[in-house]
Amino acid sequence: MGAMAELTPEDRFLRSCRGEEVDRPPVWLMRQAGRYLPEYRAVREGVSFLEMCRDVERAVTVSLQPIDLVGSEAVILFQDIFTPIPGMGVELDFSPGPVMAEPLRRADQIAGLRVPDPRESVPFVFEIIRTLRQALESRRIPLLGFAGAPFTLAAYMVEGSGSKDFATLKTMMHREPALLRQLLATLTEMTVGYIDAQIEAGAQAVQLFDTWAGLLSPDEYREWISPTHQEIVQRIQKNGAPFILYVNNGAHVVEEMAQSGADVISLDWRASLSDAAARFGEGVSLQGNLDPCALAASPEQIRDRVQAMARDAAPARGYIANLGHGCLPGTPVEGVRAFTEAVRSLG
Amino acid sequence: MGAMAELTPEDRFLRSCRGEEVDRPPVWLMRQAGRYLPEYRAVREGVSFLEMCRDVERAVTVSLQPIDLVGSEAVILFQDIFTPIPGMGVELDFSPGPVMAEPLRRADQIAGLRVPDPRESVPFVFEIIRTLRQALESRRIPLLGFAGAPFTLAAYMVEGSGSKDFATLKTMMHREPALLRQLLATLTEMTVGYIDAQIEAGAQAVQLFDTWAGLLSPDEYREWISPTHQEIVQRIQKNGAPFILYVNNGAHVVEEMAQSGADVISLDWRASLSDAAARFGEGVSLQGNLDPCALAASPEQIRDRVQAMARDAAPARGYIANLGHGCLPGTPVEGVRAFTEAVRSLG
Repeated sequence: MGAMAELTPEDRFLRSCRGEEVDRPPVWLMRQAGRYLPEYRAVREGVSFLEMCRDVERAVTVSLQPIDLVGSEAVILFQDIFTPIPGMGVELDFSPGPVMAEPLRRADQIAGLRVPDPRESVPFVFEIIRTLRQALESRRIPLLGFAGAPFTLAAYMVEGSGSKDFATLKTMMHREPALLRQLLATLTEMTVGYIDAQIEAGAQAVQLFDTWAGLLSPDEYREWISPTHQEIVQRIQKNGAPFILYVNNGAHVVEEMAQSGADVISLDWRASLSDAAARFGEGVSLQGNLDPCALAASPEQIRDRVQAMARDAAPARGYIANLGHGCLPGTPVEGVRAFTEAVRSLG
Repeated sequence: MGAMAELTPEDRFLRSCRGEEVDRPPVWLMRQAGRYLPEYRAVREGVSFLEMCRDVERAVTVSLQPIDLVGSEAVILFQDIFTPIPGMGVELDFSPGPVMAEPLRRADQIAGLRVPDPRESVPFVFEIIRTLRQALESRRIPLLGFAGAPFTLAAYMVEGSGSKDFATLKTMMHREPALLRQLLATLTEMTVGYIDAQIEAGAQAVQLFDTWAGLLSPDEYREWISPTHQEIVQRIQKNGAPFILYVNNGAHVVEEMAQSGADVISLDWRASLSDAAARFGEGVSLQGNLDPCALAASPEQIRDRVQAMARDAAPARGYIANLGHGCLPGTPVEGVRAFTEAVRSLG
C-alpha cells in the first residue's frame, strides 16, 4: 500500500474505474448536491430549478458544496438530464419532475426533432464544467459529467411526465415499434454529442443515468435498451474518461449492464454487490449501492453497512462507494457524513 | 395425456399448484375484474370503491365477469387488500389508492391495534366467497381468496398513502425497528386469521400480495419480509388450499420467495421465468409473468409470448399462466382475450 497512501482523490477515482490498484475505495453520492443540504436550499431560494441549472455561478456553487459539507470525493456537474432537450425543439417544464408541453406520440413530432450542437444550444453546461474544473484542479478532485439515457428521456417525452407504469410508452413499444426506435436513435445521436462536448470541456468521467430502463423485462431490455448503451459507449470520444452506467431498479439486468462496454456499472440497492462482483467483477468495476433511506440509521450501523459493501465488492477489479439511488430531500446530513467517513476509514 | 384432456378448470388449477401432471397450464389474470372491462365500469357506476367491496351482489357479479367476458379459468374474490384494516381500528379512504386518516407512527397507535375475528368485522367477505363458490360449483371453476401481505399493509399504514420511496417507513425500519416489528407481528396475526376464515368459507387457494416488499434489498428482505411469509404459510389451516405468493418488483428475491414455503410463487415480468424454473422449479410451481402492457401487442405477438413463457416455465413442476402485475385501466379487452386463448391452445 506504501505509495498508494499518497493517492489523490482524482487518482483513486480514475484508477478504481479502470480496475487499477488503490488504497481504498473512493466515495461520492448520487444527487449529493440537493435539497437535503440547507446550504443548497439557500442558493436555490428564489429561483426555479431551470434557472438554477442555467445560472453558472449558482450551479458551480452547489456542485462544490458536497466536498466540504459532507466529505464527498468527487464532484458531479449540477444539471438535469433534461437540460439538452429544449434544444431539440421540445418544450418542457418541471413540477417538480419534467412535464412536456406536448407529449411526443406522432411520427411528424419525432421526425421534426433537431440534434443541435450542444456547445451552441446549452453553452452554460460547458462553462460550468470549465469553471468547476479550474476550481477542482488544485485539490485534485475528479469532475464527473453526466447525461440521461435515451430510453429514460424517451419515456418522459412519450408519456408526457413521470408515471407509475409508463403504459403509453410501452403501448408505443408494442404497437409502433418503428416510431420508438426512431426516437431512441435520435436521442442516442444527441447523447453522444452531448457527452463528447462534456469530456472536451473537462469532465474526467461520465455517468449515464437510465432511470426507467428497469421497467422492462430482461428480453425487452436486451432488445430496446442494451443497443442504446452499447452505441453510446462505442461512439463517444472518451479521451481517457471512464464511462459509468447506472440503471435504476436494474437488479434483473446486471449481466446486460456488465456487457454494455461501460468501465463501471452503478447498482441499485436491490442488486447483490457480491453476486455482481463474483460474476462480472473481473471485467468491470462496480459502484453503489446503499439504499439512500439507510442513511437514517445510526453512524455505527452505516459504518457496518459500508464495511459489508466493501467486503462484498472486493472480488471486483474496482469499487466506488456510492448510494443505490440519489439522496432524498429528507436524507439526514449527518448520515451522509457518516457514510463518507466510513469509506475513508476503510484505508 | 388421454385422461388429462378431461380435466376440469378446478383440477387443472389445483394440480398445477401442487406440481401434479396436467394437460396444459391454467390461466387467469391479476386484477381481471377491473376498469378495463366496460361491464365492470357499468356495475361500479354510482358507487364508491369501498361500497363496491361491501356490496355482496355487485362484488359477486364483477368477480364472475372475467370467466365469460375474457375466458379466465379461475375467479378471485373481488375485494381490496385493505378490507380488514378498518376492523383493526384504522380509519382510511381510497383516492384512488389507500389514504390513512392518521398515519401509524407512534407506539401507542401500534399497541392499540385490534385483531378482531374477521367473520364479525368483515362478514360480507365470507358471504361473497360462499355465494361465489355456489355459482362456480357446477362449472368446476376454482375460487381464489387473497390477502395483502403484512409488510405492504404496514408500508401504507406508516407512510399514510402510496409513495415513490416509502422513506418514512424505511426511516422507521432504521430508527425504530422494534416498533415496525410489532406492527408486522400484529398484521401477521390478523392475516393468518383472515386467510383461515376465507378458506373456511370456501376459497380453494389463496394468494398473498406483497406489493412493496420489492422495495427492500435482499438482506433487508430476508430480515423483514421472509419471516412474515414463512409464519403465515406455517400457521394457516390450509385444508388442501394451495398458497400463492406474489411479490411485485421482486426479481432480486426469487430465491427467498421460493424458500417461503408457498406452493406457487407468482413472478413479476422483470424476473426470468426460465431462471426461476431451472433453479427452484422442482420444489415450487410458478405463476406469471407477462407485462400487462404487452397486452397492447397484436394477438400473434401475444401468442408468441405465451408460448415462450410456457417453454421457459416447462422445467418447473407446475405453471399457471398469468400477468406479472394486475390489468391496467387501459388494458385492451381484446388483448386479454388473446392471452387466455393463447394459453388454451397450448394443450
